[in-house]
Amino acid sequence: MGAELTVTFLGTGASWPTAERGLSAVAVKRGGEVILFDCGEGTQRQLQRSDLSYQQVSQIYLSHYHGDHCFGVPGLVKTMALNERDRPLWIYGPRGLHRMVDAWRKMGGWTKQYPIHVQELQPGDVVERDGYTVEVHDADHSVANLCYALQEPMRPGRFDKPKALGLGIPEGRMFGQLQRGQSVTLDDGRTVHPGDVLGPSRHGRRVVYSGDTQPCLGVMEAAHDADLFVCEASFTRDLVDRAREVKHMCAGEAAAIAAKAGVRRLALTHISPRYKDPAPVLEEAVEVFPDAVLAEDLMRLEVPFR
Amino acid sequence: MGAELTVTFLGTGASWPTAERGLSAVAVKRGGEVILFDCGEGTQRQLQRSDLSYQQVSQIYLSHYHGDHCFGVPGLVKTMALNERDRPLWIYGPRGLHRMVDAWRKMGGWTKQYPIHVQELQPGDVVERDGYTVEVHDADHSVANLCYALQEPMRPGRFDKPKALGLGIPEGRMFGQLQRGQSVTLDDGRTVHPGDVLGPSRHGRRVVYSGDTQPCLGVMEAAHDADLFVCEASFTRDLVDRAREVKHMCAGEAAAIAAKAGVRRLALTHISPRYKDPAPVLEEAVEVFPDAVLAEDLMRLEVPFR
Repeated sequence: MGAELTVTFLGTGASWPTAERGLSAVAVKRGGEVILFDCGEGTQRQLQRSDLSYQQVSQIYLSHYHGDHCFGVPGLVKTMALNERDRPLWIYGPRGLHRMVDAWRKMGGWTKQYPIHVQELQPGDVVERDGYTVEVHDADHSVANLCYALQEPMRPGRFDKPKALGLGIPEGRMFGQLQRGQSVTLDDGRTVHPGDVLGPSRHGRRVVYSGDTQPCLGVMEAAHDADLFVCEASFTRDLVDRAREVKHMCAGEAAAIAAKAGVRRLALTHISPRYKDPAPVLEEAVEVFPDAVLAEDLMRLEVPFR
Repeated sequence: MGAELTVTFLGTGASWPTAERGLSAVAVKRGGEVILFDCGEGTQRQLQRSDLSYQQVSQIYLSHYHGDHCFGVPGLVKTMALNERDRPLWIYGPRGLHRMVDAWRKMGGWTKQYPIHVQELQPGDVVERDGYTVEVHDADHSVANLCYALQEPMRPGRFDKPKALGLGIPEGRMFGQLQRGQSVTLDDGRTVHPGDVLGPSRHGRRVVYSGDTQPCLGVMEAAHDADLFVCEASFTRDLVDRAREVKHMCAGEAAAIAAKAGVRRLALTHISPRYKDPAPVLEEAVEVFPDAVLAEDLMRLEVPFR
């Protein structure tokens, strides 16, 4: 059994909030832990509206420092302190993070009540966490933007109980040893190896968050083989020239990356206030990649094992 | 005819947002202009949810610099710029405002696209605006807090048309002159003075915003004769010791000030997340001052002439 893995879209808007869409924030819940990707203004209120608790947030990964992606950090940090947090918080982001934290500290939006670990990342870095890693990939936006991939490790194959019993292995301790990858020796002297009773190793799950970027190799690499690829879709293709100018993605481009990268499911987010009816954004993506959804605020997606 | 004057409660919560209450912000709409008192995180989204436009905001008065009262400024300022504002914005607050603006500038939440006038105020200051003033009063909180009173000037008394006709004044130009306070001389040589045809001068309207404070003389002075007194009510009286410790108001104390200050209507805001059911907050106030209401997010109150 692996941990529950769900993705809650806290804010799916772009640039400025609307009545319908808050600013960028995606919460990945894995077991009892919440990992935030971006934290636009209003994220702490969206957490209050969701079934997540802000105190469960262990890490915040910022894609870049445009306000719509990070101005919610100082308020959230403060609220955690006001509510007597003592568990540490990790905040990651591209170069410039220390400068932002200096500003937030100057605003009074900081605390010494619980440990806050601030770390600047660069493409190629891998953050090792308990039960998963977060890979850091390059992107191509008007400012430095990082694309993140939460990756669980490979899991052992399924334990074939009938086969194990057929080999004469007694139920109990030896079953556990084999499932943990250890060989066992039976009373009659035979040795059984894990490969004899375990199916092929199974993929861990992969959830990828693009931040703001135009199509580029870095995002393609990040998205590779993702179970869920959360990608910005700021424009529709009729505005592709504008998308290139400001280094954003069109919905069809996000879908093309999803298709080429072998993604299982695509969620479009960072929906511009220009699309009062966002149906064209989704339609453009679905033409290229059918298993696409348009994210809405507080929408939740489960990420099942394959 | 005077300008329309309405008060919209954008955020009525305290300390941190809840699903029901955003962070402190009160919008006063006077004619085509919106004046913000405080601007907690999420205020720009609440403006989007209201029938006001953020581009109508001409001035922001910050009571103090706790995050729940001002962390919405950099995002709002940015959004105004992204939407091609060119009209100026005035931001006022107690000492420390320049330091906050330095932090917001460092965050990238600032702009040179339209003029932003930043001015630190102190008790006794009066900001002169077109058609009203904003008085600055002292308060008593854990940090410097200012209490603001928007005051319209006295208006001339009602024009008594039957009386004017009875005096033989011909309808037309002379009516306007008298209404504007000028004496007129009739064809027969008689002089009619404005006082002959105008009733007693009428009060302009007064709207007062407390910010965060415990009961004190400054707030009492500010609230004097207010048409609407918007007052924080962070606690109920059972927690008065805690209220003193953190320098906040109990609902009954806000009501007592309203009663003593000759206020016409009291609106309680800055409702603590502790009051999931806020009925006791209102009940405590109504016992002392019956014309009290409990503010809810996006609630709108008209402020009529007397």
